[in-house]
Formats: sequence, C-alpha cells, structure tokens
Amino acid sequence: MQKAQENSRDLVIVISGPSGVGKDATITRLKQSGLKFHHVITATTRNKRPGESNGVDYLFISRDKFQEGISKDEFLEYAEVYGNYYGVPKSEVRRGLANNTDVLIKVDVQGAITLKRKIPGAVFIFLLPPSAEDLHQRIRGRKADTEKDVGMRMGMLTEELKSLSLFDYAVVNRNNDLDKTVTMVKAIISAEKCRVNMRSVTI
Amino acid sequence: MQKAQENSRDLVIVISGPSGVGKDATITRLKQSGLKFHHVITATTRNKRPGESNGVDYLFISRDKFQEGISKDEFLEYAEVYGNYYGVPKSEVRRGLANNTDVLIKVDVQGAITLKRKIPGAVFIFLLPPSAEDLHQRIRGRKADTEKDVGMRMGMLTEELKSLSLFDYAVVNRNNDLDKTVTMVKAIISAEKCRVNMRSVTI
Repeated sequence: MQKAQENSRDLVIVISGPSGVGKDATITRLKQSGLKFHHVITATTRNKRPGESNGVDYLFISRDKFQEGISKDEFLEYAEVYGNYYGVPKSEVRRGLANNTDVLIKVDVQGAITLKRKIPGAVFIFLLPPSAEDLHQRIRGRKADTEKDVGMRMGMLTEELKSLSLFDYAVVNRNNDLDKTVTMVKAIISAEKCRVNMRSVTI
Repeated sequence: MQKAQENSRDLVIVISGPSGVGKDATITRLKQSGLKFHHVITATTRNKRPGESNGVDYLFISRDKFQEGISKDEFLEYAEVYGNYYGVPKSEVRRGLANNTDVLIKVDVQGAITLKRKIPGAVFIFLLPPSAEDLHQRIRGRKADTEKDVGMRMGMLTEELKSLSLFDYAVVNRNNDLDKTVTMVKAIISAEKCRVNMRSVTI
C-alpha cells in the first residue's frame, strides 16, 4: 500500500465514455494545451492500428504476458472487450502519483465502473457524444472497425449511458469543437484543486 | 415556495470570505469579464461610503424599514454586524432564479453559514487572503474603518477560518492577481454546470 496526495493538490482523473466519442483526441489536445499530467498507458493484447506506437498509445503485450499480470494482481482493473484484454497497470498509476503530478487514466465505461470502486477518490469524467447518430458517424469514419464491430459498439452505448450517474462530471464532446471540450475538462481540474475537501487516491 | 432550476443548468453561487479580502473587487471583475449572472443586492442600514450608490452597491434602507422586513420574513438571512443590519432579500434571489440566469450572492462568513442551512444546494466559495498580514494591510489601505474596526475585523478572521469546512471551494485572492481569482471562480462555475448530479436551490 502506498499513500499518496495527503498534502498535495494532485488529482487522479478518469476520462471515460463510449467508444468513438473522442477520448484520445481530447487527451492529445489536453497535452498540446500545456496542461501537465501523467498519462497512464493502458496495456492491451489487441493488434496495433496504423500509426499507433508501443508505450505511447498502449503497452502492446502478448496474451501470455497479460495473463501473467492478472495472476500477479498487477492491474488496477482489466477486462476482455471484443476478444482482447485491456488493463490499467498499477505500476503506471503509482509512477504518476510518486512524481507529484496529476494522473490521467483513460478507460472504457466498464473499466471506469471498476475504478470507481477501487479508487473512489478519483475525479470521474464521462465524455458524451452530442447524439447517438453523431457517434455512429464517427465510428464509421474511423474505418478501423468491421460492420459487426460498429453494430456492437452502438448497442453498448445505451448500456453505458446507464452508468452515467456513477460519474462526477459529464462533458459533451462536439467533433468540431474539441477546444470547448478541453476547456471544460481543464475547468473541472482547476475547480477540483480548489475544493475544500480535496479528493485523494490511495493505491 | 417557488421551485427553480429543476431542468436548468443555473446555479446559486455564494461568494464569502473575511472583510477586506476582495469580494467586491472579484465580483466587479467577474462582471467585466463578460460572465452573465444576477448579482443579488444586499440590503443594509449602514451609511453609504464615498462612491457607493443605492441599488448598485447596496440597498440602503432605514432601520425601521429593515426591522419591518425582518418581521415579514423578507430576508433569506440577516445579521447585525458592527452595529448595522445587513440582509439578503428573498425577492432579489427569486428575481434572479426566475430570469434563468446564475445568481450570485455576496455575504460575510456569518451570513454564508446561515445560507448553507437555508439553501444547501448553492455553491459556496470562500475567498482567502494570501496571509493575515496581507489582509491587515488591505483593510488599513481602504481607510474606511477606524483603528478599532480594523482590530475587530482582524480578530474575526481567526473565527471565520474555522467555518472554512462548510464551504465547497476556497480560492486564494492575491491583491495583485485578481485575474487569477476570477479565472478560478469561472472554472468553478463551469465545472459545476458539468456535474452529473447538478445542485439546485429552492426558496
């Protein structure tokens, strides 16, 4: 057990939302905006997509290695989604907390539900699409998924929206106004640092 | 009873803090920054200071009129401070809520404690001086108070800080960086509008 943030103003921020809503684009833009934070890299067994790099977008590891990690309790949360493992390595979160910076974790909604139980002192932000139709078009535009995948993802949206009440904040991410989304996420982080009863996370 | 904000994103924001910390300057700068809100005018029986206008800085009313208001339960909260009455007219808060804008109330710390009980769904912001010494200099610089007043106000600071835990947020107001203070207050308002479980006020 490692106790962190007792006297600091550092936060653990969980950014979640439906597949295709723009979590990665939001985080990339947050970095570009000059906001300092430790971005926790998720481990996965899925195949790399064109343009992705190991250790930047994900830690791409083998199924054997991932299962070894599970047996050693090395993941804060993990799940098998669409036949692939995804997990948040505890070591990654601890590394951020040890460096006295805010820690940002990107997870799918199912993962966020688990994290809410494991680290309730984190700040939970749900990125919302302006509409289901908008989300559908974004996923199709990404061209990384098969038709079957697109159908599966859209079906999940209804389920995922049922978990909205577990989150602290909801931010609508409009495709053509990522700056607005980033401004809102930064406002949330600033406000949370002014809270009299500051949240804190122990792992 | 008037129910407001059921389906709106409008907030009631209470800005408080020790005398001399810069509540008025912060609110003036918030207005100048383009933020739209209904600023609730406090009623008082104290004498006008140079430069103050009735209906802008305060509703300056007689002791008789104020006491009539008390007997008719027309104040959300009121108090006698330094021998003068100060009160928040319910009609002023209702007027703001009816107009579908955020409502901002400035009160001293004692008043905020009462408001926390009366309208717990408001957002409570405590403006902090960088230090007690800084506050002392600001009050003396204002030249509106006698030496005895200055001593009284400084003595109250210790008492007032004990109530900090009742507030949602604390913002340090540095005399030479009012823009920072205003940015933080605006971030708090933006973040509160993204809350999944939105606060609401009924009067």
